[in-house]
Amino acid sequence: MGEKYVIGVDLGGTKIATALCDSDCNILSKVKINTDSIEGEQRVMQRIKESIYQVIELSGVPLNRISGIGISSPGPLSVSKGMVIYVASLGWNNVPIRQLMQDEFKVPVYLENDCNAAAYGEKWLGAGRGYDNLIYITVSTGIGSGIIIDQKIYHGKHDAAGEFGHICIEYDGRRCSCGNKGCLQAYSSGTAIAQIARENISQAVKSKILDYSKNDVNNIDCLAVEKAAYEGDEYARNIWNLAGSKLGHGISILMQMYDPDIVVIGGGVSKAWDLFYSPTLNALKEHTYKLISGDMVIVPAQLGDDVGVLGAAMIVLKEQGLQEDDFLQLKIS
Amino acid sequence: MGEKYVIGVDLGGTKIATALCDSDCNILSKVKINTDSIEGEQRVMQRIKESIYQVIELSGVPLNRISGIGISSPGPLSVSKGMVIYVASLGWNNVPIRQLMQDEFKVPVYLENDCNAAAYGEKWLGAGRGYDNLIYITVSTGIGSGIIIDQKIYHGKHDAAGEFGHICIEYDGRRCSCGNKGCLQAYSSGTAIAQIARENISQAVKSKILDYSKNDVNNIDCLAVEKAAYEGDEYARNIWNLAGSKLGHGISILMQMYDPDIVVIGGGVSKAWDLFYSPTLNALKEHTYKLISGDMVIVPAQLGDDVGVLGAAMIVLKEQGLQEDDFLQLKIS
Repeated sequence: MGEKYVIGVDLGGTKIATALCDSDCNILSKVKINTDSIEGEQRVMQRIKESIYQVIELSGVPLNRISGIGISSPGPLSVSKGMVIYVASLGWNNVPIRQLMQDEFKVPVYLENDCNAAAYGEKWLGAGRGYDNLIYITVSTGIGSGIIIDQKIYHGKHDAAGEFGHICIEYDGRRCSCGNKGCLQAYSSGTAIAQIARENISQAVKSKILDYSKNDVNNIDCLAVEKAAYEGDEYARNIWNLAGSKLGHGISILMQMYDPDIVVIGGGVSKAWDLFYSPTLNALKEHTYKLISGDMVIVPAQLGDDVGVLGAAMIVLKEQGLQEDDFLQLKIS
Repeated sequence: MGEKYVIGVDLGGTKIATALCDSDCNILSKVKINTDSIEGEQRVMQRIKESIYQVIELSGVPLNRISGIGISSPGPLSVSKGMVIYVASLGWNNVPIRQLMQDEFKVPVYLENDCNAAAYGEKWLGAGRGYDNLIYITVSTGIGSGIIIDQKIYHGKHDAAGEFGHICIEYDGRRCSCGNKGCLQAYSSGTAIAQIARENISQAVKSKILDYSKNDVNNIDCLAVEKAAYEGDEYARNIWNLAGSKLGHGISILMQMYDPDIVVIGGGVSKAWDLFYSPTLNALKEHTYKLISGDMVIVPAQLGDDVGVLGAAMIVLKEQGLQEDDFLQLKIS
């Protein structure tokens, strides 16, 4: 038989990360390249293939030992059809990525929504180990979630379960990029934090945000608001307080609907944990049914930037029949 | 072997309904008695036992052919411990109802939350037949939901998944009986509809609600608001519009978090379908991600007042190994 290896691909709007893992899901080789989506779908597909050949070459593992490839992609997508339906950041419409990759590499390919893949990674390798029912929330340029029920990814009818960024938390609230009003994403995402800062900066007596934005309102991004807030800037702090309390409101809803064993929070914006966690927790306690809030577990993600490739690789390992007992044994030994 | 029979008990704050069913889940005998919870826990337990002996006697089925008893109860409760934790309407705290019933009848007993049992009933016998992922919503004196994922009841960590009535839909909104603010239940339940009508009746120029309440504000109940609304009373209609639109807001959140195959709406208040459904659907479409709202299925429940006993009986049948194929065959033949 010999050892088996799998490949995880994390396809994003700006970067493609690809890793080759052994059957313990240890990363043996990894590459990260620009997506350069502006060059078009075929070129991006070519770059994904090249990244896969690269990790194989770097690892020294022969191609015939690769048992499968997992791909984490933004959505909406169809898991069963292996098809990316539409991704604005890539300019993709109905791309049969699974088939295209299978034709090239002649191994089983699994496509999964990026939040779901990340949830799966944290469940098996990160902060969610040992829990059966987990919700992973990503707070990044957008907001999304991945739902694990009974150790498996829960997809829903349109592979759209866990569209957490688009739950309405304020009936006539801020307009969201999706067209609807009051979505959580319109308050607590990185994009929203920057936008709210830009919209209201004239109300700030003097904010350090501008120091981090070359004194140009148009340059304000989430990182500038973060840096200013960490320095105690009141205007910036208020924006984070709003984002945090709206996020807490959103999580309270999620706690009541799923009553999960654990909630794991990841994504770029979540690295500013100290800025948002306190208002998040306050709002969460205020709006969650006491029975649930008494012992809820909410923790930061553990896998960092590798969550996408690891989650995608884990999907291959689990789909190909690695049992939990085998796996736990491997991790312990 | 011989035919096997099961018993379903629907324990409520005011009534206990009990039915004996064959293995097709046809009801062979049924009784409905008052709970009379004021008489105390032991007396209520005695009445449940008596109702079970009654359906057995009425059916003529010998006791040794009963393979199990399912009990649907208000919660919170522990399914795994077979224990009712706390029910205000019954005045119960930590009642080990499963053990008490097993001691009496010497057959396996299954305890389930009332919303979950109803969801299970609708999934196998009612509006949800043929769907794997279903959400059942009850709109009654309170609001709750039961979640079916992959054909099974999803419970969550505290058996509290689907606490739909207590999701916060307005951050600083109306105070709910649970102590939190802005819960859906504080707007769209039967209790809330009556309460809102009472609070604001002085603002109504002339409302027919009072005609149905013996001209006494304190007598206003949900049924009076319903009757007046059906007669075109504007004040009453506005209350139903508010209740309906808040319900739609709530369901939009649920659609995004679960992306279910179907949503089934039951419960006493839901019988006023014509009053609330239009504002519900409008709010729902306005706040749901387009991918999901395009072909969502939202239907009224089909099992009526029998949903509790049928759901409880179905839990016994499924727990004891009746396979879906067997069952479908039975229903078709």
